[in-house]
Amino acid sequence: MIVVMKTDSSQNQLDHIINKLESANLGVHLSKGVQRTIIGVIGERKDKETMKMKIEAMNGVEKVVSILDSYKLVGKEFKPEKSVIDIGGVKIGGEEVVVMAGPCSVENEKQIVKTADAVKKAGAKILRGGAYKPRTSPYSFQGLGEEGLKLMALAKQKTGLKIVTELIDKEYLEIVCNYADIIQIGSRNMHNYSLLKALGNIDKPVLLKRGFASTIKEWLLAAEYVMKEGNHQVILCERGIRTFGEKTRNTLDLSSVPLIQELSHLPIVVDPSHGTGNWRLVSPMARAAVASGADGLMVEVHPQPEDALSDGQQSLTFDNFNKMMSEIVKIAEVLGKKVYSPGVAV
Amino acid sequence: MIVVMKTDSSQNQLDHIINKLESANLGVHLSKGVQRTIIGVIGERKDKETMKMKIEAMNGVEKVVSILDSYKLVGKEFKPEKSVIDIGGVKIGGEEVVVMAGPCSVENEKQIVKTADAVKKAGAKILRGGAYKPRTSPYSFQGLGEEGLKLMALAKQKTGLKIVTELIDKEYLEIVCNYADIIQIGSRNMHNYSLLKALGNIDKPVLLKRGFASTIKEWLLAAEYVMKEGNHQVILCERGIRTFGEKTRNTLDLSSVPLIQELSHLPIVVDPSHGTGNWRLVSPMARAAVASGADGLMVEVHPQPEDALSDGQQSLTFDNFNKMMSEIVKIAEVLGKKVYSPGVAV
Amino acid sequence: MIVVMKTDSSQNQLDHIINKLESANLGVHLSKGVQRTIIGVIGERKDKETMKMKIEAMNGVEKVVSILDSYKLVGKEFKPEKSVIDIGGVKIGGEEVVVMAGPCSVENEKQIVKTADAVKKAGAKILRGGAYKPRTSPYSFQGLGEEGLKLMALAKQKTGLKIVTELIDKEYLEIVCNYADIIQIGSRNMHNYSLLKALGNIDKPVLLKRGFASTIKEWLLAAEYVMKEGNHQVILCERGIRTFGEKTRNTLDLSSVPLIQELSHLPIVVDPSHGTGNWRLVSPMARAAVASGADGLMVEVHPQPEDALSDGQQSLTFDNFNKMMSEIVKIAEVLGKKVYSPGVAV
Amino acid sequence: MIVVMKTDSSQNQLDHIINKLESANLGVHLSKGVQRTIIGVIGERKDKETMKMKIEAMNGVEKVVSILDSYKLVGKEFKPEKSVIDIGGVKIGGEEVVVMAGPCSVENEKQIVKTADAVKKAGAKILRGGAYKPRTSPYSFQGLGEEGLKLMALAKQKTGLKIVTELIDKEYLEIVCNYADIIQIGSRNMHNYSLLKALGNIDKPVLLKRGFASTIKEWLLAAEYVMKEGNHQVILCERGIRTFGEKTRNTLDLSSVPLIQELSHLPIVVDPSHGTGNWRLVSPMARAAVASGADGLMVEVHPQPEDALSDGQQSLTFDNFNKMMSEIVKIAEVLGKKVYSPGVAV
Repeated sequence: MIVVMKTDSSQNQLDHIINKLESANLGVHLSKGVQRTIIGVIGERKDKETMKMKIEAMNGVEKVVSILDSYKLVGKEFKPEKSVIDIGGVKIGGEEVVVMAGPCSVENEKQIVKTADAVKKAGAKILRGGAYKPRTSPYSFQGLGEEGLKLMALAKQKTGLKIVTELIDKEYLEIVCNYADIIQIGSRNMHNYSLLKALGNIDKPVLLKRGFASTIKEWLLAAEYVMKEGNHQVILCERGIRTFGEKTRNTLDLSSVPLIQELSHLPIVVDPSHGTGNWRLVSPMARAAVASGADGLMVEVHPQPEDALSDGQQSLTFDNFNKMMSEIVKIAEVLGKKVYSPGVAV
Repeated sequence: MIVVMKTDSSQNQLDHIINKLESANLGVHLSKGVQRTIIGVIGERKDKETMKMKIEAMNGVEKVVSILDSYKLVGKEFKPEKSVIDIGGVKIGGEEVVVMAGPCSVENEKQIVKTADAVKKAGAKILRGGAYKPRTSPYSFQGLGEEGLKLMALAKQKTGLKIVTELIDKEYLEIVCNYADIIQIGSRNMHNYSLLKALGNIDKPVLLKRGFASTIKEWLLAAEYVMKEGNHQVILCERGIRTFGEKTRNTLDLSSVPLIQELSHLPIVVDPSHGTGNWRLVSPMARAAVASGADGLMVEVHPQPEDALSDGQQSLTFDNFNKMMSEIVKIAEVLGKKVYSPGVAV
Repeated sequence: MIVVMKTDSSQNQLDHIINKLESANLGVHLSKGVQRTIIGVIGERKDKETMKMKIEAMNGVEKVVSILDSYKLVGKEFKPEKSVIDIGGVKIGGEEVVVMAGPCSVENEKQIVKTADAVKKAGAKILRGGAYKPRTSPYSFQGLGEEGLKLMALAKQKTGLKIVTELIDKEYLEIVCNYADIIQIGSRNMHNYSLLKALGNIDKPVLLKRGFASTIKEWLLAAEYVMKEGNHQVILCERGIRTFGEKTRNTLDLSSVPLIQELSHLPIVVDPSHGTGNWRLVSPMARAAVASGADGLMVEVHPQPEDALSDGQQSLTFDNFNKMMSEIVKIAEVLGKKVYSPGVAV
Repeated sequence: MIVVMKTDSSQNQLDHIINKLESANLGVHLSKGVQRTIIGVIGERKDKETMKMKIEAMNGVEKVVSILDSYKLVGKEFKPEKSVIDIGGVKIGGEEVVVMAGPCSVENEKQIVKTADAVKKAGAKILRGGAYKPRTSPYSFQGLGEEGLKLMALAKQKTGLKIVTELIDKEYLEIVCNYADIIQIGSRNMHNYSLLKALGNIDKPVLLKRGFASTIKEWLLAAEYVMKEGNHQVILCERGIRTFGEKTRNTLDLSSVPLIQELSHLPIVVDPSHGTGNWRLVSPMARAAVASGADGLMVEVHPQPEDALSDGQQSLTFDNFNKMMSEIVKIAEVLGKKVYSPGVAV
């Protein structure tokens, strides 16, 4: 932390700040330059953010600059080697690009089983599907609830696919844990710290979507909430951010893939469906995501998108999904990775 | 809803869409222009958003344009006259500009009681203070919990101020209701629909902060979630949005004040503390908020900002708060409104 | 400038950086902390930005943090007292809130003269009007050119109002200087450094609108371009920034008013017309701008907005402008300022 | 264009609007729904945007919704087949992914010639280099001017590479045309319509970078400015947009690649250097760009990034560039495209 004093700050103000820092057991490194006096703050405190706010409130201070982000467990300095999350044999973060696919919402048995069959045949390893749906409008379909989870379990039984599904409230934690192999935290709940803490106390992988307006730092700190409680099985998921862009639902920020890989040991997957909101753009962005180095994909697929109860506009048909899979298999190869290819043991 | 067909769409595709609309009991108004065929969709469906997504998924469609937002109860068409929320005699939405003030977090008895005294003397009617704190970093102070609520109750008892405090989880709903006169939903939870539904079933005013990246439409739909369940006592609170701005914590969007007043009957207050993140900017923005027509203010005040456990950098001292109050009293007058002035019966 | 080294950086990398800094005549202040080695760079170089980029390119560097912005002449440290720009007796930056008003585009004699009369009667001191128009679409009205300037001159002659009009290209510099009392640089040209340099060499006040996506720092550096060449008569104009906001043309960032006043000695005015893009929001935002401390306003007024060749949707009628003026007169008073009131000598 | 009337609008207001539309030779398609009266406007006018603004200014109008964007020549409806821009035998928009590479600024003969040699060997076809530099700070290096162009010409002579370089002002149009094979318009000048019109009157390909805060529609309209004057040789270049992102210089919006390809016949290339501002992210984003379907890349390469006079932090060394090229060659193959591979005739 660096404290920059105002040009017209007084010696008294400076002394007052130094006292405050020292009484908090922090070291002080004073540097009087031509234009400014600058205080370098040395030492470690758990709550850097609070100390920063306090100093910013003091007279004579122009600004306080943070030097290091305040996450620890998610960082590469804590754990240099890449984390591989093992979901009953399906490994995310290793040399395989893992594909999660399925409908936005589970609607009925036929829909989910048919989709599970199709995506499995195309090479997906994990079935996605929403049973509890966070919707912007209270008048939109809110999901089938536990009934939806049961249908996913049925599809799992028939196909062997693992299940990822969203948890929107601590209230459903136990019930969702009964069915899911990975608990998904949606974009709107990335800042729901109460929910994150609860997930820190279970033994189940968590897929943490990036908040649609969250910075990289905030996203990593959200993962830190889960890990701090003891659950280190966190998979990050880039799903687009909100910008002024007028022709896509979100702006898919693929640079977050190599950035996260530089800062953190956690695996990162990409959701090009929410990232674009337009099925025509899903395949190109899926290819780009794999090329950028993503550890996996999460893609919406529906037998009949025009009848979907949610997100039809961004769902791939089976045919389009097959085509996408055949492309990303080859792109993964270029990076020395592989995508499961049916009929070939992986 | 307007469906715009692609130039090269076929008659078959058009027929297919019309069938789908008609089988959903929607009227169809076809308009073949020089450049495009356009389908006007007539009639009302609860879930417009889903139908929009379905049509967007269909072949031959270039885009679907919504004509009306999907909220109802929050809109002026549902209730043309302004809603006045009565908090035990303190009325928000009427001719008084109501000021809520207090520390970001409740820290101890002395701090909260002293602050309550000071802000009351300056004209505030409602005491703000956080007992359960949503913090970006898990290593930051998370609030005193129920102990904090008890201290607020003590301050209320001594000053007669009403209490507004944040609810971060359904788990604490009952306990927070025991103490609070207004339940605050923070910016990060504006999209927490599960929490919003729970608030719809209590009989207590809700202060709904705007999500830091939410559109006006999404904000109104969040209020709709509360109202749809039966609780019509909703107060909106503008608190700044996230932009590329580099020198403020958020960008305070004051145009939302007259916009909301045009679209909705709900009262709207402004939080210039979070809106700027810099105490030097709080008073100018408080004045601007009142001048723009806001129904109230929510301001962070701390006896010693440099010792605050959170948000010190954006908290006013008692002196600065007094000065701010003396200014907004006069600005309110210009608009034919009033701010409570101690010693004068209101 | 602070250089933060990577945890795993080598002594060689550190030495290499120190050598580079020292050979650029910069002092080095080394601080080896528990987690990181940090280099404080001491001394002044004109081109800080380049040195920052060079160091960022070096191996072993995690990041480089700037401590001070690179503007000088616009800053309060260069000139602590507020600058007052005198436009033939009309002073911007002093105790008067100066109002500039008029149509977006000059369309014909009747329109501009009638508007000049009306805004003068209501208290405006400066007539705005576009003769050269930057338009997003090449098919939109591009302005009357010099003919428009002549019509403004006529209106000036009849009313005594000063003239502010936009310069979109160096090609028209001389011609625009022949007519204008203030040269306006539009939002799209704030980054047109070639144009800014040309304005630095004339003796005429410049009204520099904020780029619609420019930071405060970039805006001040644009003013620095003008001042560096010798022209110190710069007036800044906040006109809204681009955000995800869906119901306004821009998001008016009023916090820039007190921010600029803290950082710079230059006066700042606000344009609530472009800032909102909706005439219904112009008056509330004009009031808010004055309450925030703005030195002036720039407002679009048209005799018949529905016939305007540009920006009709955000133009006030004469009646609405009169009403706005009567409100801001009183708000200016609250701040100890005044707005010219017809019939009263100022 | 669809006009949505307010619920409480009067018949008079409606008649007035219809009259205005009809007197502008526009057809009117009235639709009185349960909630709203809606006017469908039929027919073509060059200046749709102005008519939209006029109607928005009228009483009784809630909003006006555009149905079609106002560009023509850039659109696929005007020209369904992809445009291929031929730069003396190097074809952009065809089946080759064309790579443009070189330093941000031309600094001296050795630097530019050495870089030209290196990038040519790695497979680049076009040499980039700035001689006139738009810089945020007036104290930063502003380029060598014509001297820089002469050095590029020398490098061209020695390597056979084509030249792309930026034009920042009409003043230099002739001189830049004397040396450049492609004229680059930088992000800050995308809205400089005066410059765009000038480029419309020359016979030289234009590389039009996306404004850092421009929508897809605005970008296409900027291209329309050039094409409307007669020059149809326009290449679009995605280079990242400004968002709240805190760890990259810009957010590279790769979804613009398939989007542009759906809306326009113009080729589109990607600049991952400015798109990220961090050399560590350039190769992953270059791979992703090619995978998304881009027609080419523009990449900053410098013999010694730490000595670059601009943008060192985002420049690749020769080694890193070679590595990047070897990767994209293979990714292009997956898409059925090719990248020039030295030693192999293309």
